[in-house]
Amino acid sequence: MSENGTLRRGRPGYDRQGILDVAVAAFNQYGYDATSMGVLAERLGLSKSAIYHHFASKDEMLDHALDDALSGLERVVDETDAAGGRAADRLDRVLRGAVHVLVAQLPEVTLLLRVRGNTDVERRALERRRAFDKRVTALVEEAQHEGSLRTDIDARVVSRLAFGMINSIVEWYRPGGRENADRLADDVIAIALDGLRMPTSNRIEDFSV
Amino acid sequence: MSENGTLRRGRPGYDRQGILDVAVAAFNQYGYDATSMGVLAERLGLSKSAIYHHFASKDEMLDHALDDALSGLERVVDETDAAGGRAADRLDRVLRGAVHVLVAQLPEVTLLLRVRGNTDVERRALERRRAFDKRVTALVEEAQHEGSLRTDIDARVVSRLAFGMINSIVEWYRPGGRENADRLADDVIAIALDGLRMPTSNRIEDFSV
Repeated sequence: MSENGTLRRGRPGYDRQGILDVAVAAFNQYGYDATSMGVLAERLGLSKSAIYHHFASKDEMLDHALDDALSGLERVVDETDAAGGRAADRLDRVLRGAVHVLVAQLPEVTLLLRVRGNTDVERRALERRRAFDKRVTALVEEAQHEGSLRTDIDARVVSRLAFGMINSIVEWYRPGGRENADRLADDVIAIALDGLRMPTSNRIEDFSV
Repeated sequence: MSENGTLRRGRPGYDRQGILDVAVAAFNQYGYDATSMGVLAERLGLSKSAIYHHFASKDEMLDHALDDALSGLERVVDETDAAGGRAADRLDRVLRGAVHVLVAQLPEVTLLLRVRGNTDVERRALERRRAFDKRVTALVEEAQHEGSLRTDIDARVVSRLAFGMINSIVEWYRPGGRENADRLADDVIAIALDGLRMPTSNRIEDFSV
């Protein structure tokens, strides 16, 4: 069980955010549908009515968690737009920013990436995800037009593959591991923008490690 | 429904592969745990005992589907190893081959990527996935040592991010869409090996579309 569980427990323990954290962890572990209010109450050591004091429904918890993840991502694009500059540099900042949001809000982003549109809350979240994707695709197109990015790959495919790479981080990243967010963001940018190949790649002779 | 379905057997006609195709589609749609034999029987228009004639259990269906996906991926690395050549060229072939397996066996690979290790069958599949990942990581290391790939990114991170990009294709790829497997494989290789940036990327003047 979470460290929270051992610290807090009993009555006193959980504020609204604490309840949400435990709920999101359970949704990610068992699936949203499979996680009942009863299961959450047990995990929290609270009565169901104590949970209802903070959230009207499981759906409201989901809504909050997805909004946290989406707001984080949207803020990255908003701030980048506001700062201006070359499209390629803005794309760099958006990709880096997305890695940071993912690492900082790993459970919420994990939940977001598993949403399939089964409820109104999920459909609204997917709608916002699509709007975000469109803004990234528009940025890729702008960078292609300004001559900074190669134009032989469709901008939608570029943004899907770049975010496929970023989103896959939720599958293996664990906080406190050897890679921190800055390093991961550098790696993603290095691969996406400059590729893995050595600039002078046809030689086999030198062993540079 | 699959072309197989119309050709074969008993009721309307499912052979073993036809049953498996319908089962895998249901597992992907509803989740493996949530899909009962009863639901499958209803979808197929067969009795449960007609299904049991082909598969001893739901677990056996899962095992077969996961084996299809894993065998496809393992074959790509086996054949590449057998062909030999520079590590960078072998990595190119492995990444391309993986995209082709993913597109050719989209439902089975989708199922594989959702496996979380809840049963023995799932744990064995995860074990094979990890072995595959290790072979790819070893290939990345070899390409770094031979001087073909940049050495400033950890080989494990490289293989995770590259396969993150490839695996994300299951999220949006639909057969018959504008991108075929060859084109997709080209795009993945172009981004992973050479990156998105134009070689002479500091200019803004020319608009090449």
